[in-house]
Amino acid sequence: MQTNPMLQQLNFLREIDRLKSVIRQSPLLDQSRKENSAEHSWHLAMYALLLHDHAHSPVNLMRVIKMLLIHDIVEVDVGDTPIHSGASQQDQALQEQQAAKRLFGLLPAAQAAELHDLWCEFEAASTDDAKFAKALDRVQPLLINVATNGGTWAENNVSLEMVLQRYGPTIERGSPALWAYCEQAARAHFAAKA
Amino acid sequence: MQTNPMLQQLNFLREIDRLKSVIRQSPLLDQSRKENSAEHSWHLAMYALLLHDHAHSPVNLMRVIKMLLIHDIVEVDVGDTPIHSGASQQDQALQEQQAAKRLFGLLPAAQAAELHDLWCEFEAASTDDAKFAKALDRVQPLLINVATNGGTWAENNVSLEMVLQRYGPTIERGSPALWAYCEQAARAHFAAKA
Repeated sequence: MQTNPMLQQLNFLREIDRLKSVIRQSPLLDQSRKENSAEHSWHLAMYALLLHDHAHSPVNLMRVIKMLLIHDIVEVDVGDTPIHSGASQQDQALQEQQAAKRLFGLLPAAQAAELHDLWCEFEAASTDDAKFAKALDRVQPLLINVATNGGTWAENNVSLEMVLQRYGPTIERGSPALWAYCEQAARAHFAAKA
Repeated sequence: MQTNPMLQQLNFLREIDRLKSVIRQSPLLDQSRKENSAEHSWHLAMYALLLHDHAHSPVNLMRVIKMLLIHDIVEVDVGDTPIHSGASQQDQALQEQQAAKRLFGLLPAAQAAELHDLWCEFEAASTDDAKFAKALDRVQPLLINVATNGGTWAENNVSLEMVLQRYGPTIERGSPALWAYCEQAARAHFAAKA
């Protein structure tokens, strides 16, 4: 096992290159292909950078951005689990915990602990920072679906009621202002399809 | 023109989705395809998060990460200009300045000014934060090339001397420690090819 800190860090940075090959359900806005988890993470960091003033409670932007940069890294080992897939949440959580332990464990101890703790905080949505980060992770795909004539909702026969239930509480908890916009956009989308 | 701040921000976030379709010269490490500028920006933010202790001078991590998240956004309008392309640097700089003005100008005034200033600071490498960010933007493709049997160097007949000249000063200025590693890796790569 590598014990030089810089070599451990560079090894981790090589390992997570594979996040660019984890394909999500959401399309790009031009619908040319599906989005991958690495570019999704960049987009979410940009959401946080621009929208943090709309959080429910004041947030620490650096912590929110760190969480969003790393929130999907476990998918390098376990892949993406779509929100509408109906997969067992317990199995998925266990697999992701093992992946987090292995991947962050590649780093020097202090950094491994910091990033693992941040990832757990995000998963548990146990702080205002994590609640806002989680909200953005729902806002972005919702807006993609609205902008792409239904996107993954159309593919999975998702109704307005399901959208309000699966996205609403998570977004509203982190940002009532963003949920007000998203709810209106979702209602307008389904009204136009009716 | 939109004057509601949140709608301006969401419009900008839609606009920059196109960065996911700007294709760079560097391949993914598994060589399955070329990298795009959005996932490259995510990877660089992760480089900064993990490697900032190796900067030549102490840096403000939040500012470095902001710079790296936005450093390629102008490519939404003007595309990527490869380091080995030989394109006119003056023409490219002018086009990128126009793109920065248009794109960041979509945001509320205070945010537009902050991000435009950060982008200019990065381009000019006028601070320790920008010098470190610029260094990482050279480290990442150099390490990709080493890890992919030459990558864009092999495609463009780039020699060890050209690598030392095109990457060395920028990386060493921001991080002598990272350059020491990169120089050794580049020398070993070319020695093995000889």
